[in-house]
Amino acid sequence: MLSTFMKKRSRKTGLPPGTPIFIGDKKTDKTSIYLFDYNNKSFCEHSTDSVKACLPYKDRSTVTWVDVDGLQDVELLQHLGHGFELHPLVMEDILNTGQRPKVEDQGKYLYIVLRMLRYDEQKEKVESEQFSIILSKNFVLTFQEGCMDLFDPIREQIRTKKGRIREYGTDYLVYSLIDIVIDNYFVILEKIGEKIEVLENELVTNPNPKTLNQIHHLKREIILLRKSVWPLREVINYLIHLGGERNGLIRPTTKIFLRDVYDHTIEIIESMETIRDILSGMLDIYLSSVSHRLNEVMKVLTIIATIFIPLTFVAGVYGMNFKFMPELESPYGYPAILIIMSLVAGTMLLYFRRKKWI
Amino acid sequence: MLSTFMKKRSRKTGLPPGTPIFIGDKKTDKTSIYLFDYNNKSFCEHSTDSVKACLPYKDRSTVTWVDVDGLQDVELLQHLGHGFELHPLVMEDILNTGQRPKVEDQGKYLYIVLRMLRYDEQKEKVESEQFSIILSKNFVLTFQEGCMDLFDPIREQIRTKKGRIREYGTDYLVYSLIDIVIDNYFVILEKIGEKIEVLENELVTNPNPKTLNQIHHLKREIILLRKSVWPLREVINYLIHLGGERNGLIRPTTKIFLRDVYDHTIEIIESMETIRDILSGMLDIYLSSVSHRLNEVMKVLTIIATIFIPLTFVAGVYGMNFKFMPELESPYGYPAILIIMSLVAGTMLLYFRRKKWI
Amino acid sequence: MLSTFMKKRSRKTGLPPGTPIFIGDKKTDKTSIYLFDYNNKSFCEHSTDSVKACLPYKDRSTVTWVDVDGLQDVELLQHLGHGFELHPLVMEDILNTGQRPKVEDQGKYLYIVLRMLRYDEQKEKVESEQFSIILSKNFVLTFQEGCMDLFDPIREQIRTKKGRIREYGTDYLVYSLIDIVIDNYFVILEKIGEKIEVLENELVTNPNPKTLNQIHHLKREIILLRKSVWPLREVINYLIHLGGERNGLIRPTTKIFLRDVYDHTIEIIESMETIRDILSGMLDIYLSSVSHRLNEVMKVLTIIATIFIPLTFVAGVYGMNFKFMPELESPYGYPAILIIMSLVAGTMLLYFRRKKWI
Amino acid sequence: MLSTFMKKRSRKTGLPPGTPIFIGDKKTDKTSIYLFDYNNKSFCEHSTDSVKACLPYKDRSTVTWVDVDGLQDVELLQHLGHGFELHPLVMEDILNTGQRPKVEDQGKYLYIVLRMLRYDEQKEKVESEQFSIILSKNFVLTFQEGCMDLFDPIREQIRTKKGRIREYGTDYLVYSLIDIVIDNYFVILEKIGEKIEVLENELVTNPNPKTLNQIHHLKREIILLRKSVWPLREVINYLIHLGGERNGLIRPTTKIFLRDVYDHTIEIIESMETIRDILSGMLDIYLSSVSHRLNEVMKVLTIIATIFIPLTFVAGVYGMNFKFMPELESPYGYPAILIIMSLVAGTMLLYFRRKKWI
Amino acid sequence: MLSTFMKKRSRKTGLPPGTPIFIGDKKTDKTSIYLFDYNNKSFCEHSTDSVKACLPYKDRSTVTWVDVDGLQDVELLQHLGHGFELHPLVMEDILNTGQRPKVEDQGKYLYIVLRMLRYDEQKEKVESEQFSIILSKNFVLTFQEGCMDLFDPIREQIRTKKGRIREYGTDYLVYSLIDIVIDNYFVILEKIGEKIEVLENELVTNPNPKTLNQIHHLKREIILLRKSVWPLREVINYLIHLGGERNGLIRPTTKIFLRDVYDHTIEIIESMETIRDILSGMLDIYLSSVSHRLNEVMKVLTIIATIFIPLTFVAGVYGMNFKFMPELESPYGYPAILIIMSLVAGTMLLYFRRKKWI
Repeated sequence: MLSTFMKKRSRKTGLPPGTPIFIGDKKTDKTSIYLFDYNNKSFCEHSTDSVKACLPYKDRSTVTWVDVDGLQDVELLQHLGHGFELHPLVMEDILNTGQRPKVEDQGKYLYIVLRMLRYDEQKEKVESEQFSIILSKNFVLTFQEGCMDLFDPIREQIRTKKGRIREYGTDYLVYSLIDIVIDNYFVILEKIGEKIEVLENELVTNPNPKTLNQIHHLKREIILLRKSVWPLREVINYLIHLGGERNGLIRPTTKIFLRDVYDHTIEIIESMETIRDILSGMLDIYLSSVSHRLNEVMKVLTIIATIFIPLTFVAGVYGMNFKFMPELESPYGYPAILIIMSLVAGTMLLYFRRKKWI
Repeated sequence: MLSTFMKKRSRKTGLPPGTPIFIGDKKTDKTSIYLFDYNNKSFCEHSTDSVKACLPYKDRSTVTWVDVDGLQDVELLQHLGHGFELHPLVMEDILNTGQRPKVEDQGKYLYIVLRMLRYDEQKEKVESEQFSIILSKNFVLTFQEGCMDLFDPIREQIRTKKGRIREYGTDYLVYSLIDIVIDNYFVILEKIGEKIEVLENELVTNPNPKTLNQIHHLKREIILLRKSVWPLREVINYLIHLGGERNGLIRPTTKIFLRDVYDHTIEIIESMETIRDILSGMLDIYLSSVSHRLNEVMKVLTIIATIFIPLTFVAGVYGMNFKFMPELESPYGYPAILIIMSLVAGTMLLYFRRKKWI
Repeated sequence: MLSTFMKKRSRKTGLPPGTPIFIGDKKTDKTSIYLFDYNNKSFCEHSTDSVKACLPYKDRSTVTWVDVDGLQDVELLQHLGHGFELHPLVMEDILNTGQRPKVEDQGKYLYIVLRMLRYDEQKEKVESEQFSIILSKNFVLTFQEGCMDLFDPIREQIRTKKGRIREYGTDYLVYSLIDIVIDNYFVILEKIGEKIEVLENELVTNPNPKTLNQIHHLKREIILLRKSVWPLREVINYLIHLGGERNGLIRPTTKIFLRDVYDHTIEIIESMETIRDILSGMLDIYLSSVSHRLNEVMKVLTIIATIFIPLTFVAGVYGMNFKFMPELESPYGYPAILIIMSLVAGTMLLYFRRKKWI
Repeated sequence: MLSTFMKKRSRKTGLPPGTPIFIGDKKTDKTSIYLFDYNNKSFCEHSTDSVKACLPYKDRSTVTWVDVDGLQDVELLQHLGHGFELHPLVMEDILNTGQRPKVEDQGKYLYIVLRMLRYDEQKEKVESEQFSIILSKNFVLTFQEGCMDLFDPIREQIRTKKGRIREYGTDYLVYSLIDIVIDNYFVILEKIGEKIEVLENELVTNPNPKTLNQIHHLKREIILLRKSVWPLREVINYLIHLGGERNGLIRPTTKIFLRDVYDHTIEIIESMETIRDILSGMLDIYLSSVSHRLNEVMKVLTIIATIFIPLTFVAGVYGMNFKFMPELESPYGYPAILIIMSLVAGTMLLYFRRKKWI
Repeated sequence: MLSTFMKKRSRKTGLPPGTPIFIGDKKTDKTSIYLFDYNNKSFCEHSTDSVKACLPYKDRSTVTWVDVDGLQDVELLQHLGHGFELHPLVMEDILNTGQRPKVEDQGKYLYIVLRMLRYDEQKEKVESEQFSIILSKNFVLTFQEGCMDLFDPIREQIRTKKGRIREYGTDYLVYSLIDIVIDNYFVILEKIGEKIEVLENELVTNPNPKTLNQIHHLKREIILLRKSVWPLREVINYLIHLGGERNGLIRPTTKIFLRDVYDHTIEIIESMETIRDILSGMLDIYLSSVSHRLNEVMKVLTIIATIFIPLTFVAGVYGMNFKFMPELESPYGYPAILIIMSLVAGTMLLYFRRKKWI
């Protein structure tokens, strides 16, 4: 997976900067555009695939949300970027879907990159998708790779005037989007938490190399998750403290809500660290349960071998064919030797009991 | 446990922010309210379950302490929040009982979240409960989940005018509450310290996989404890340095006492780190005692096998049925072979002694 | 490799500072100079080996790029340094090819050191080369050790007026050079990513000491890579924030592009950290797969030995030559003993099954 | 030890703050007070157990040093605290002997807590005692738990006018006290260094589980030592930079000496870190020497078993009682089989030699 | 070594501060003084052992370098310190040869402590010596313990006017001294690098406990080296940024050269960290090669034992002396049993091959 991404990334080497190339997997068939335009009183909603239909909304005082699904239609996206006056480097970043979360103040608008996560039940791993947000005074552009839309609750809130969303501006819409993306991380953590519980049971009942592989698998998932979540802390901190300094894009009322999101981010980061610690502990338990098993096996071998090897030797001695072996002639020889053997075995067993091996 | 909490948390995904939902276990049957109102001269105390009874005290110049036990009655709590003019996000946080310790300056009041800990003797683990404090000029609201009230000593001090509590304001009351919550952590650490001593004895006398599991169990308890205690440092630091900057809610005289609490917090954090180091050391000791045991087992096996395998071979040789084996005919054959066997065994023993195996 | 470099470095001890000595491997036969001179309208390109040919371009208002390949001709380089007024310590650093990435503001010009990396397929390791840049108002000097030129795409852009390069000044040229050097790191990471995938398969199918050596080999490559990449972060940060403060060498428009490069650097650093974590995980898996194998081997040994050692003992007993052994005379002795042996073996097998060994 | 302290500490839970309770072990029979009063010209010295005798010296312009040994007489100490106007929380901290090193500016005086360490030869562990200093313009109060007085050299310097102590003020006296406490840490480190050397020899000659326990024991001592020493750095840094800012209690001339003490503290901290690293290295050596031993044991077992098991089998074959075994009849059978056995054994030995096992 | 130093250090406990006592090993027979006095035009050079001969040079405007070799003659050094007006604590530090690198601004002069390192080929370890520098406007005092003078190249530069040394002032002389001390660290790192290469070969061809000890030995050398080098970073940083702030002792021209030294220090620190990582990797390889060997040994044992133990049992069965064993009578018994035995052995071998043991 790592090398797949790198391969795509390295393909770009040597091209002049600002060249828009789509780097990523094609996740939808078609690039489609959903447009929402609303304020406290009115509201309209379109689905389109033409940039022209969107441009008139650009400078209206209402809140306009243009949501682009699928990034493979580079030409359409370039038109859009041109229409909404985005910097070529921003367009390049939107298309280059391996970005880490970041925020850039481009003067007239803020460019925010987040990563959406989804737990793929079949592949048993976390899938990651880039989610780009352009926050301007009157419009919000969002770009999704396309197969894990999380925003139906927000669309519903807009349609039904539930909550505060219709009363506030673009900054509150962006806050709502960020909030839902981050809330979704809790779902991922829950999945991982469930997997950990299953593994913990397996560790106690039947630790095997598959358990180990799964622990390592989860550990790696957490490593990749961290790459998506850690930079978020800075991003949201920036939005709270500097996000509207120069251009007033984020109002103080929205910042209170962003502080709430910040708390959630910290919570997620801490949960991830806790999970990491727990996984490390599970590795230790696995390794020591393996070495405990080895010990058990060795003890059984040692007990059996230590008891019977000397006895076999004794039997071997009286199996020798020497002419003159007086013990062999005696009628008490056989019972005597059986008694001696029992005594040797008994002593051994006592010794092992004292050593607490049995 | 981790996944249980996550499951509850993730249930909230998609709801508009500020929606008050109780996330946690129902720990009492009923939400009840205890009200204290006092100053240097007068004092009264009520137990009620109506918000109306509390509101008249809100703007009095006396110190009013409204203590809410049990968070499941969301409606009642919303009335209360409305009556005392709390921000919807604060109400949401009070009900969402997985918060980490934090402090928020909401202008007219400070919102403080702490975690109360209790060692559950039966389940042999640390239980955690959220404790929310609202500190305003004239009143203090506290919210407990409900089953581990620690504050009887403070109530007693208020009733009996013991200590300084009746002479000072709301800030000193809040200090007293924080102090008692943090002092209680020492009790938890004591329990863990006792467990460690028991385990240390077990490590010396009879290390077994159960010992290991218990070490890991304590390690995990410390991990979860840290999540409750680490952020406290910042919280109290904030109270000392910025807590009354804008609104004068915390007076300099109280800050001296908070500095004392800060020292305790540092002490607890250091004790936890020490315990972590000690537990890591115990893990090392366990693992090497296990490998020492394996060595012991192997040495016994090797000594026995190494001595008797060659002897058995010799016996086997003279058990062969060849017609022409001159040794077998000689009357000295048997004693000679016994002497040779003793010599071989003796040499082996000497070799092991030189190797310091016996 | 480490000691080879150190040997060369320590050779310099005791010489007065600023003495130009070439420290490194001679990688080309001849020091050669490529000169580009361009602005938005005109453009010319020379290949020369005389310093005199370059000097007239020094103070022209066009952008002049003097690219030096091969550092062994110390005299020529000293002439060049003298002609372009470089500080003796800067000349010393250019020749001393073990520098870590850095940037120095020398008043009239900036001195930037980068490291170019190349994956040598045959030696299966990453090769490193020093790349020095002098950025002045009107000219850019670059110094390569000589065998891994990466800059043909830039030359092509200058020749064909592709991209923005001909429109901007020396700072944009330097940005393009840095960008291409850093983009090339992704190619290296891709190679390492591919190697890791091969090793991961090997770990599952057939872990052997060679796998281990290769994991350690990659780990060491990453250690050396980090030395090249970590300081870059500071270098580019410096260029963005302080690079033109005093002398205006880097214009704000170029800083936007440098911010993009900064993001790439962070991405590379994070990928390296991820690779490190993955390699550590692979080491753990290797070690535990080895100990799992030992366990398997021991189990087989124990099962066989534990079953047959007692049986052999029984056979040995009835191989003894005592005169009076009543069992031997009985016609049921032999079948009886065979049945007893089968029972013992059966019991053993049941015991092992219960222990989940077979 | 840990839990013992915790038990005492947790006993305080619920008491109103500022309640003076002695938490610690009673280390002397009686609380006694030594008083020194001196300036450049005059000098007097008393031993008393009454607070009244001390108070007249409080406001004299001479330097007064009141040294209290033993903290169990809480009443006497409270009188003293009252007489010298100490804050109740300071008195509480003086009596609560588990404090970490700290410094508090109380306006008129500085309150400094240090920890004195002593290596108890019999218990083979480091004992720790709290040493509290009150530094005021005209007097210095010191509180010791009572059994490890280190300050005779200072008393001697006061009596004999050796050094500069009689010429300077209270700040120099406090510096001298701190200096002697910290110098004493070097003695502790020396003891630990000696123990390490003994253990290193043991590691080479005869590593056994006792060695391991002692390494862990030393490691734990270092952990507890660090708790005493780390905060010192901050304490002395504070004294140097802020110690006299508001109240001029520490003069610049004394600060030069405190800088010297700061260097010693850094030296001690670094030595501790070095010792930690060395102990970790010793653990590694122990573990690998143990596994080396296991290897040795296994090799001996394998060599013996591998040589004799096949030979024993051959002997077993010719011990079979089949009627028709032609080899048995031949007169060359026996010598032939002996030669074959020797060849098998020889081949085995050659194989082992090639494998470098013998 | 550690404890030896501590022993000497702890001897000082209890003495009044500023008492000059020589702590260290006597490394030369006699304390001798070399004096250089030069400016751009003139130059003179003396060897003396009297302080009086040096004092006249103290206030001359020429650069005077007084180099003291050997610190055992405490009286002579005290005269010198008095003559050049050094603070008693500085004299104490010069004599106390276990100082870590530091720089102190004493107003009229800077006091710099460095550590010179030498690789002792015979003892196979790094030796360390304290090198103290006093930098004043007109003179430089240097104090060496005495057996590893590195400064002949500088003396030669002064004598022959090579380089810039005669043109610049005392600050450039001090820079040259520091430069040569730090350049010498590269020589040490080279030695360690060579040792590592030898050990790496040993690890591949014949890993044994001696290899392990040597890896640990090198690790410890690096630990001690770090103590000498880490603080240097701060020291040189201080010289660059604050070194002449108050008293103009270090001129801007010299600071450019010190920046170069700073780069070298960083390079050395990074090389040390790389070496540490490499050594850790080597430890891992050692441990896993040891466990690989154990596996090999066990496999041989298991194969031999597993094949022959069942066969020996079969032979034992037909060695029993029962009267009625029909197989023994049959003429095909013997060949039949030999065939059965071969089949059993063959099956076993096939099983092992499938398991990839052989």
